[in-house]
Amino acid sequence: MPNKNLEEAKEKLKKHIIDESELSAADIASHLKILKTHDEDEYAKYLEKLDAHTLGEAAMEMPEHMLRDVIENIPNDKIAEAIDELESDDATDLIQTIEEIDEEKAKELFSSLEIDSQKEISKLINYEDNEAGAYMQTELFSARLDESLGSAIARFRIMKQENKIENVFSLFVVDNEGVLKHTIALEDLITYDFNLNLNQIVVEDEERFKPHFAIDSDDIKVVADIIMDYDLSAIAVTNRAGILLGRITTDDIHDFLKESATEQIYNLAGVNDEAEEEGLVKTGRARAAWLFVNLITAILGVIVIGFFEKSIESLVALAVLMPIVASMGGNAGNQTLAVTVRRLALGEIGIDDFWTVLKKEIIMAIFNSLIFAIFLGVLVGLWFDMPMLGVVIAVAMVANIIMAAFLGTFIPLTLKRIGLDPAVGSTVFLTTATDIIGFFVFLGLATWILL
Amino acid sequence: MPNKNLEEAKEKLKKHIIDESELSAADIASHLKILKTHDEDEYAKYLEKLDAHTLGEAAMEMPEHMLRDVIENIPNDKIAEAIDELESDDATDLIQTIEEIDEEKAKELFSSLEIDSQKEISKLINYEDNEAGAYMQTELFSARLDESLGSAIARFRIMKQENKIENVFSLFVVDNEGVLKHTIALEDLITYDFNLNLNQIVVEDEERFKPHFAIDSDDIKVVADIIMDYDLSAIAVTNRAGILLGRITTDDIHDFLKESATEQIYNLAGVNDEAEEEGLVKTGRARAAWLFVNLITAILGVIVIGFFEKSIESLVALAVLMPIVASMGGNAGNQTLAVTVRRLALGEIGIDDFWTVLKKEIIMAIFNSLIFAIFLGVLVGLWFDMPMLGVVIAVAMVANIIMAAFLGTFIPLTLKRIGLDPAVGSTVFLTTATDIIGFFVFLGLATWILL
Repeated sequence: MPNKNLEEAKEKLKKHIIDESELSAADIASHLKILKTHDEDEYAKYLEKLDAHTLGEAAMEMPEHMLRDVIENIPNDKIAEAIDELESDDATDLIQTIEEIDEEKAKELFSSLEIDSQKEISKLINYEDNEAGAYMQTELFSARLDESLGSAIARFRIMKQENKIENVFSLFVVDNEGVLKHTIALEDLITYDFNLNLNQIVVEDEERFKPHFAIDSDDIKVVADIIMDYDLSAIAVTNRAGILLGRITTDDIHDFLKESATEQIYNLAGVNDEAEEEGLVKTGRARAAWLFVNLITAILGVIVIGFFEKSIESLVALAVLMPIVASMGGNAGNQTLAVTVRRLALGEIGIDDFWTVLKKEIIMAIFNSLIFAIFLGVLVGLWFDMPMLGVVIAVAMVANIIMAAFLGTFIPLTLKRIGLDPAVGSTVFLTTATDIIGFFVFLGLATWILL
Repeated sequence: MPNKNLEEAKEKLKKHIIDESELSAADIASHLKILKTHDEDEYAKYLEKLDAHTLGEAAMEMPEHMLRDVIENIPNDKIAEAIDELESDDATDLIQTIEEIDEEKAKELFSSLEIDSQKEISKLINYEDNEAGAYMQTELFSARLDESLGSAIARFRIMKQENKIENVFSLFVVDNEGVLKHTIALEDLITYDFNLNLNQIVVEDEERFKPHFAIDSDDIKVVADIIMDYDLSAIAVTNRAGILLGRITTDDIHDFLKESATEQIYNLAGVNDEAEEEGLVKTGRARAAWLFVNLITAILGVIVIGFFEKSIESLVALAVLMPIVASMGGNAGNQTLAVTVRRLALGEIGIDDFWTVLKKEIIMAIFNSLIFAIFLGVLVGLWFDMPMLGVVIAVAMVANIIMAAFLGTFIPLTLKRIGLDPAVGSTVFLTTATDIIGFFVFLGLATWILL
């Protein structure tokens, strides 16, 4: 199997280099990765053979260890050329990633870039990770109101020939101060006479050409929502004064959607998504932090059990059975929690929907817990030959699953209401609560009724 | 607070209806939802006032209960008009959703649609949910090789005026049999002389105009990857013979990305994402299924504890402490599991990366578990005044956390290798294993060393 993969990877890369068959950057990076695993020499050879354009695009898709190979083995001027060829947002990302690997190298590369690239990157690098500006590229197709459509297109043709711009879906129209006034989608633009001036076009249907835009300091989440709500393929980005700075395209929104889903999945599992991108030490430390919180909360559960030491001594079956009650509560609660967190993130529910969600969850909890309670109660009653023990575990389980449904709704909605991320820490809070409630109700009832 | 929301919602809807300010469909649906909660009469009034176009778009964003209001209160011919105005993929979705609410009504509406819409929907409705065809719209801007660019654009202008098409980013060029031959992005198209015939344009740069396409029966996941890898804004869909059928646009990919993230989050929590969309009974039943699996596995854990009843009787501290070991293993394992499942989904790792991933996870598990083991061992030794009990719990915890790291890697990669979804059931398998291993190692060691 590995050899087949290796041969296929070599074949495809060779074909790409010789006749420029259009492999995607992601494909090239993954073929190179196979080569690296199986044949270091061939890997080095192909890495060197890539043209600057392909190298830049592929570098964007490479894991850190491969990027390290690139900066150690490829001459600076070729890497600089590769970065120059990237769109400004990608160039900025790449320089930042290289900076994390080798700060000195990043400086060297930066000073070898074209002056224009240096200027763009210097601007973009100052945005925070969650700001629209950080996702923006500065390459634009824009024109002033008094320009003719034909002249704007003639300029655009030259930009295209010089490979200065791609993925263009609209023309941004600005006034003499550079303030964004209108957006004309290419699909509208092609239906007009090219001899018309832009101001003659935009007066025809002000509503249609009203621009959607984001401010560079806007949260990218808000921008993503606008893009998705209006099915845009790109959105203009301006500063607070309305001056057009750049644009965000849907491929950036794809990345954002994937990143935010990863963040939710990781947060629910007590994993920090940013630390996970770092080295082993930082990743391990971030995971340990949540495990430590879990340890402390587990000790709380243990203290509750400790209250009932005497009961357990006189009826050891209690120790045997108590994990079932806790486990079922934890699982049922995690179901509710996952659904609530996700529906909040998708905007399907809001903090005002507490009662609606809770009602639904409680009804399901009552039904489901009753079924399991009857099943487990009968089983335990027969197994230990103690009908009342069956009753105790059944009641404890119903109580714990209903509480779990309440908490699975309450915890994320409350976190959201006080402005925190509904996914962060909610699993630990929930399972601590279902453990403590499960142990307490089961052992307490048993002590009261049986002993 | 609610009244402020209500007034704002009324204001915005009124403005939309009077001067057609461009609210997004999502905004309209959410304003209507606020109205429904606070003022049923106003809600009914605004629902009626929406024009057919807005109604259709907004209906796509409505939860089931509001869609029910629409089909019960708005005349059939207006709803049919609203459906006619939608793009074919959305029209199909809406008819299918209405069918789930009221089958009879869906039939009535379908027969009131324009013949063209009926034809398109009949075709699209046959695709499976995960097929590219189900995400495709049949509205296209296409032309034959021998047509002039100017003539194609003239036809397109009329389609636009008749509101037959929107969100167009490229012209699909077909041969006389309707087989897709080339794709010309609008950004390239505008740089050519409109008097040229298409075959004169495409010969200039065959590589640039080579079409990306999907087959209608392709898995949408594969199609989404192509769109994202090549940063496309739309992709052509053909049948197996290459005949052009429709196109998939990025807004469909946004939906797909959100849906697949939801699926992963839900699967990890033992929730079925499809059942969750259904009524209370189906949702509850699907959740109960996973809870039942969890119950059975919890009983397995209990059987293991049962082996050590005698040990617990002679040292009740074992019962008090055993949940800590299980809980820490479960949490550490879930961290590894979430990261592995997500990185598999993003394509960052594949089934061949087992050893690489495992090595990293095991190293972190050794470090983290040692720290917690020392902390907890000392605490327990002092607390119960039994140093050897501290040693036992420390060793058990290290063993369980390392096993958890192994299983958190092994379970999802193995599920993937045998062609199953790595997220489905993996949490239950994992926590069962960490419970059983935790109980067994802790109680076994204690029995062997202390008793």
